[in-house]
Amino acid sequence: MLIVMHHTASEEQIRAVEQAVAALGLKAQPIPGGERTAIGVLGNRGYVDDTTIRDLPGVLEIIHVSKPYKMVSRDFHPMATVVKVGSAALGDGGPPVVMAGPCSIESEEQMMAAAHLVKAAGAQVLRGGAFKPRTGPHSFQGLGVEGLKILHAAGREVELPVVTEVMRIEQLEVACRYADMLQIGARNMQNFDLLKEVGRLRCPILLKRGMSATIEEFLAAAEYIVAEGNDQVVLCERGIRTFETATRNTLDLSVVPLVKALSHLPIIVDPSHATGRRPLVPIMARAALAAGAHGLMIEVHPSPDKALCDGAQSLDGQGFALLMKELRFLQDCFAKLNDPAFETQV
Amino acid sequence: MLIVMHHTASEEQIRAVEQAVAALGLKAQPIPGGERTAIGVLGNRGYVDDTTIRDLPGVLEIIHVSKPYKMVSRDFHPMATVVKVGSAALGDGGPPVVMAGPCSIESEEQMMAAAHLVKAAGAQVLRGGAFKPRTGPHSFQGLGVEGLKILHAAGREVELPVVTEVMRIEQLEVACRYADMLQIGARNMQNFDLLKEVGRLRCPILLKRGMSATIEEFLAAAEYIVAEGNDQVVLCERGIRTFETATRNTLDLSVVPLVKALSHLPIIVDPSHATGRRPLVPIMARAALAAGAHGLMIEVHPSPDKALCDGAQSLDGQGFALLMKELRFLQDCFAKLNDPAFETQV
Amino acid sequence: MLIVMHHTASEEQIRAVEQAVAALGLKAQPIPGGERTAIGVLGNRGYVDDTTIRDLPGVLEIIHVSKPYKMVSRDFHPMATVVKVGSAALGDGGPPVVMAGPCSIESEEQMMAAAHLVKAAGAQVLRGGAFKPRTGPHSFQGLGVEGLKILHAAGREVELPVVTEVMRIEQLEVACRYADMLQIGARNMQNFDLLKEVGRLRCPILLKRGMSATIEEFLAAAEYIVAEGNDQVVLCERGIRTFETATRNTLDLSVVPLVKALSHLPIIVDPSHATGRRPLVPIMARAALAAGAHGLMIEVHPSPDKALCDGAQSLDGQGFALLMKELRFLQDCFAKLNDPAFETQV
Amino acid sequence: MLIVMHHTASEEQIRAVEQAVAALGLKAQPIPGGERTAIGVLGNRGYVDDTTIRDLPGVLEIIHVSKPYKMVSRDFHPMATVVKVGSAALGDGGPPVVMAGPCSIESEEQMMAAAHLVKAAGAQVLRGGAFKPRTGPHSFQGLGVEGLKILHAAGREVELPVVTEVMRIEQLEVACRYADMLQIGARNMQNFDLLKEVGRLRCPILLKRGMSATIEEFLAAAEYIVAEGNDQVVLCERGIRTFETATRNTLDLSVVPLVKALSHLPIIVDPSHATGRRPLVPIMARAALAAGAHGLMIEVHPSPDKALCDGAQSLDGQGFALLMKELRFLQDCFAKLNDPAFETQV
Repeated sequence: MLIVMHHTASEEQIRAVEQAVAALGLKAQPIPGGERTAIGVLGNRGYVDDTTIRDLPGVLEIIHVSKPYKMVSRDFHPMATVVKVGSAALGDGGPPVVMAGPCSIESEEQMMAAAHLVKAAGAQVLRGGAFKPRTGPHSFQGLGVEGLKILHAAGREVELPVVTEVMRIEQLEVACRYADMLQIGARNMQNFDLLKEVGRLRCPILLKRGMSATIEEFLAAAEYIVAEGNDQVVLCERGIRTFETATRNTLDLSVVPLVKALSHLPIIVDPSHATGRRPLVPIMARAALAAGAHGLMIEVHPSPDKALCDGAQSLDGQGFALLMKELRFLQDCFAKLNDPAFETQV
Repeated sequence: MLIVMHHTASEEQIRAVEQAVAALGLKAQPIPGGERTAIGVLGNRGYVDDTTIRDLPGVLEIIHVSKPYKMVSRDFHPMATVVKVGSAALGDGGPPVVMAGPCSIESEEQMMAAAHLVKAAGAQVLRGGAFKPRTGPHSFQGLGVEGLKILHAAGREVELPVVTEVMRIEQLEVACRYADMLQIGARNMQNFDLLKEVGRLRCPILLKRGMSATIEEFLAAAEYIVAEGNDQVVLCERGIRTFETATRNTLDLSVVPLVKALSHLPIIVDPSHATGRRPLVPIMARAALAAGAHGLMIEVHPSPDKALCDGAQSLDGQGFALLMKELRFLQDCFAKLNDPAFETQV
Repeated sequence: MLIVMHHTASEEQIRAVEQAVAALGLKAQPIPGGERTAIGVLGNRGYVDDTTIRDLPGVLEIIHVSKPYKMVSRDFHPMATVVKVGSAALGDGGPPVVMAGPCSIESEEQMMAAAHLVKAAGAQVLRGGAFKPRTGPHSFQGLGVEGLKILHAAGREVELPVVTEVMRIEQLEVACRYADMLQIGARNMQNFDLLKEVGRLRCPILLKRGMSATIEEFLAAAEYIVAEGNDQVVLCERGIRTFETATRNTLDLSVVPLVKALSHLPIIVDPSHATGRRPLVPIMARAALAAGAHGLMIEVHPSPDKALCDGAQSLDGQGFALLMKELRFLQDCFAKLNDPAFETQV
Repeated sequence: MLIVMHHTASEEQIRAVEQAVAALGLKAQPIPGGERTAIGVLGNRGYVDDTTIRDLPGVLEIIHVSKPYKMVSRDFHPMATVVKVGSAALGDGGPPVVMAGPCSIESEEQMMAAAHLVKAAGAQVLRGGAFKPRTGPHSFQGLGVEGLKILHAAGREVELPVVTEVMRIEQLEVACRYADMLQIGARNMQNFDLLKEVGRLRCPILLKRGMSATIEEFLAAAEYIVAEGNDQVVLCERGIRTFETATRNTLDLSVVPLVKALSHLPIIVDPSHATGRRPLVPIMARAALAAGAHGLMIEVHPSPDKALCDGAQSLDGQGFALLMKELRFLQDCFAKLNDPAFETQV
């Protein structure tokens, strides 16, 4: 931690800060500069609570060097985490994993049709929403437990593991019974009680980035889960909220290489929610793969025009099959590109 | 709802859209323009789900006229809602209500000291956090139920109603036993299950705006509560997330007159969390009153330098007493200003 | 400047950074912490260019303590600057100054009518736009020099100084001839050549904050003007761009007390452009005064319904006269509130 | 244009709006809905100025269907524009064009070294900044005309066309003499006078997106140039400003397929300014190509550690050569992917 003093801070003010640092059991080291003095804080193990200091007279600014996360950080745990969902494995080195299916589970018929499409096209995980977070209370809220059972049956039928969103703690038990991976949605990324509870489960978690979450907050949210003992966490970039309204959200693909540098957890990309527009989905899926994503989450619906939710961003069977074909082709391209031999041989 | 067609949309495409509208039981009315055709949709009662239409060939854009909220809208319910918390009443016409107290309940001693300060200065509601949402899991998370009991006792002692934040459904029962008003924090503004549950309570709710929530989403979140039967909802602006980092958040005061025009629910302002800087709190409290807020939420701590949470934005007893004196003075000023006689007499 | 090293940085990497600091003629002071080493940089006078350092192996982050501005900083120049425009004076201690008039000068008749309204209501500066920045090229672009002459004549007629926006360097000479104060609009806040040129004039400058400018960038833009010799600069907050679309921009009033703490330059507020909605203008004008603004800029039009530009946010004569009456009343209230005797006597 | 009336709007209010529409020479068509009436406006050719209407009693909202641009729109001009810079051609169908070179021209030696690196690696356009926009006035501002001459000589030496930024109108003549393409930087995207002037030139223009410009504003800025007669405009996405601070800006790659759908102008991507971090540049360059960009702009410096400007985001010769090799490889991959035969044959 670094405490920056005002240009005009007095000797007494500097000494008062040093004493406040000492009161925390830490050591203060003044660094006089040409224009002002800064005070380094030594001896801390992790994030220092600065509330007894930052308001003292003469203090201009406090700069934290430690981060609010540690267990998910690559700095402290360099080895990549590989998360297994059924027979799929997400993480460094492995091929990208595609999770696909409808936004909402609407009926057994729709879900089965979707499952067959998804399986036939070659995806490794089946998705479907039983509990739906909707902006207003007057929209379709999902089929609930009935939907979970349908999803489970569909997964069995096509032999794919299934992932579904949970929104409240009471849903965890039943969701674990029917699903192979649980999703925490963007709106719940800082629902800390929910994070702690899924941290006590033995099942892999898909954590979506909040609409206005910084990368630091995103990783700190993952830290909540890992700190409770569950390190099977996959991060998911799904677009952030900006002033731009032409797309539903702004897909922040730079986050992929950045998170891969900062954390050992795998990260995937959801171009469907990020763009909100079907024609952009396959293009941004390509771009996500190029950015190094460990996987993708894609909305697929047997007949998007009739979807009860997010139809405008869902691919149909044909569109998804073509996309999967493209992704397999690109996966080979990127495998060659990332081969250490590329630099010298190609 | 208005469906805007591409410049080049064919007659067939326009007819296909008309049919899709008819399939929803609604009437389509084409509006040919100089450059392109738009299609108005008639006969809907509320928000229309556009998913079967917005992806049809030739459709450029769909514009919704209905809002995702109705019960909280002043357009449909012009009469102002007055929310009672103990003997305080928030709403149009009444004097501003100040809720004050520490961010976190830390000990009986600290809470009692805070309660006496708050009461002596003239605030009407006592606040204190027992369950704390913190970015990282390694920070102080609050005293929990123990804290609730301390808060309750402090409220009794100084004869003030108390408000506290709830974060999970299981906390509601115990929180209702010890508190007079429950707060839904910014991070949970779209925790829809929690909203529905507090909608079934008989206790007033303080709903904070999410960090990146639009006004439409803010009101739709309130609609979740009111739709379940609880219309005792107070909205709270507490700053939004922008690119500016000099303040903790960007306090959006225009939201106060705007929400007062759009909704019949009362709205208060929290300048402590919005600015994150103690010297700005009293100034922005004045500005909030000037903007017409029905009340304020202010962080007060008997010794902010020792606070376990958010000390840098808390006022001490002396600072808070001065602020309350200023606010009473300003309240008189604004009462004169808002008197219909002002225009002609002053 | 503080250089934060990776947790795993080697001794050699730390030494390499120390040498790079020395190569800049500065002194490096390592600060070993519990988790990682930081390196303080001593001896700099002002902002250090970090490009030779921030990419060295082992460097995690570089934190700047110095700011990109100095002459406009209150830290270095504590004495408040008072800017004179005709007989009006903007700055600490003085009463708020209101600048008002139409967005665009449309005709002699319209401008004269506006000038009389503005004068009669008690404003101190008359505004009017001759050169208009418009999003698209097919909108009305202003009357140009012809408009300047009309504005000048209107100012003479009602004995008020006039302010107008300039957009290109070639306009400066003629604008100086006809106007008493020149405005740099939000879109040109970082048009550095224009800033330098107005820095060489002897005429007061009104600098509007860019739509997505941080406070640091805003003050650095003012530094461009002051560095060339012209310290007669008034800052103007006019709303920033955020995800919220219900108002034209998000008025950031916290910037007023913050800028007053960081800089000695006066700051005013433009609630017309910030909100873009007439009914919000008087309310936010009150709030701006409460936040301590040194003045206001208000759009007034004799018949807003016929305005060629921004009519929806302009007040008419009656609305403006009422607002001025309110502001005079509030000015007295705030004078009492800010009187040092308030704390003890009221 | 669609005018949405309040739920409670009276018959008289609706008639008043119809009259205001008629006064503009347009036709009003009421569309009564279940909850409120909307009024369609027919007969307009392009954007309608709504100022005489949007503030009438009973009006809730006005929705524009026309856009502030038309000449750059693909809707009106479906044929792709190909922009030629020297022997390079940017536009649909052609291979991606890479523009590369140092942020600032620092000396003849540095520029020549950079030019040889850039040429050897296979880029098609050489970039270099002679006039530099810097946040504060105390940073290096570029070599000016001297720099232009160096850039010109370096381009001749390696037989590459050169592109350089212009910031003020007086620079245009000399810049045209020495450069083959002129760049308008992000800070000047709405410097409308500069846009108009470059619209009168016969030289290709590279227009960078403003830091907080919507796509609509970006295209409207291009319209300023095209409307003056110069249709040789290349758009450039270079990151937008958001709350995220981990990267310099947030690269908005979805804008690439979106702009390609909305406009016939070519669009390239600058991953160097967008990310501000060297290790992210090659990854995001790949992603930009995957998103369909018509080209890239990359900062290259012979010794980035000594760069006077933006060294931390510049690649060195070796890094750039590897990137170009990767891009050529990917270009072949994407050519196969985009081949109409891919769907059926691969």
